[in-house]
Amino acid sequence: MYGKFLVEGDKLVRELLHSGFKIDAIYSVNDWQMTSHTPDESPDNQLKHVFISENELKKISTHETPNQVVAVVDIPKPKPGAIYTKLNTGLYLACDELNDPGNAGTIIRTAEWFGVDAIFFSENSVDIYNPKVVNAAKGSLFRIPCYYEDLGNIFEANRHLSVYGTFMDGENIYESNLDKNAFVLIGNEANGISHELTPFIHHRISVPAFGKAESLNAGVATGVVLAEFRRR
Amino acid sequence: MYGKFLVEGDKLVRELLHSGFKIDAIYSVNDWQMTSHTPDESPDNQLKHVFISENELKKISTHETPNQVVAVVDIPKPKPGAIYTKLNTGLYLACDELNDPGNAGTIIRTAEWFGVDAIFFSENSVDIYNPKVVNAAKGSLFRIPCYYEDLGNIFEANRHLSVYGTFMDGENIYESNLDKNAFVLIGNEANGISHELTPFIHHRISVPAFGKAESLNAGVATGVVLAEFRRR
Repeated sequence: MYGKFLVEGDKLVRELLHSGFKIDAIYSVNDWQMTSHTPDESPDNQLKHVFISENELKKISTHETPNQVVAVVDIPKPKPGAIYTKLNTGLYLACDELNDPGNAGTIIRTAEWFGVDAIFFSENSVDIYNPKVVNAAKGSLFRIPCYYEDLGNIFEANRHLSVYGTFMDGENIYESNLDKNAFVLIGNEANGISHELTPFIHHRISVPAFGKAESLNAGVATGVVLAEFRRR
Repeated sequence: MYGKFLVEGDKLVRELLHSGFKIDAIYSVNDWQMTSHTPDESPDNQLKHVFISENELKKISTHETPNQVVAVVDIPKPKPGAIYTKLNTGLYLACDELNDPGNAGTIIRTAEWFGVDAIFFSENSVDIYNPKVVNAAKGSLFRIPCYYEDLGNIFEANRHLSVYGTFMDGENIYESNLDKNAFVLIGNEANGISHELTPFIHHRISVPAFGKAESLNAGVATGVVLAEFRRR
């Protein structure tokens, strides 16, 4: 399914229907349409909706116990003349070589919670249209703009935004000045932020440790940092 | 393997060797001992260490690409005349019917980062000796005391500690008084905190939302709340 991804389950497909994503087709068991899918929920009357058996659903689903419905959706194409050449003021997240699909989903969900304006993933990050990411993101993937881009180019093109890199040995975030208009840059789970991005970083920040744990999970670290940006 | 659990991979087994956990046996490829395992790393000279082939390792490992070594470890038995009857002052985490192994592991790791003194899981929570939890906890499981207990009994027996329940509609945590000596109570991923625990809760707190995401991941919420307790 080149250029497509799957959205699975009643709740997630309903959230999808309210998004701007282009749906290729919906495959559901008979009950789904009958009991809860009302026509006005669909933003597009041309929507292809195919009824299938529980067994057929099991075959196309990536879940062990599929939940009524699967949608096939177009992966959004990057726009020519990229929109990021000049970003508005706001809070943005940048993920450098993020590897784990569960982390990516959690980060997308967390970013939406804290009102992040958009997320930029380096081109060597995990595929965010992977079913594990889609599930862990809990619908936030449909609402928060996500882009794959060269992070250095983005920082370069948006000098009006400060870049805060998260490190193990940075300045204590609770003692740092945090600009409202900023990029929060998260590194790879094992190796942190790549050296090529160092020249773009204005502030090196850390979440202080109170115990002996070696590191924080990438999703948790993102949450704690974004919470602090928003608390101020 | 009744009463035992598995610890896998070079890094995690080394952290295990420095813990007080009782190791039943270590199974490793020849190289592991030869290149990096020095005898003084083992706290117990009686340790049973068996060399096996890569193929045998693959059979006992739960990983797709096992990493040199697997340890079989005794699950700690609860002590008779439980130690929690009167806890010291400190910060404690209580998890009510936590379901997801990845969340449990992340929460254990996060709790250690923020210097939580012990974690109490309700008896219907996920098995923390499940390989997914052990891996996600990244060694913190060996260093932070974890107990399965009736949470109501614990709160009842420790009236000197305030109970902070995390809710979707609680008081903004950034506007709440936070006691240094407290339980932070995290609810089930889908259903929140069970009604039976309501009478024990002194403060209902929330992490304020800035976007439209429906909820925070349990691990991220735990991290943001514990960070705020420690920041003060």
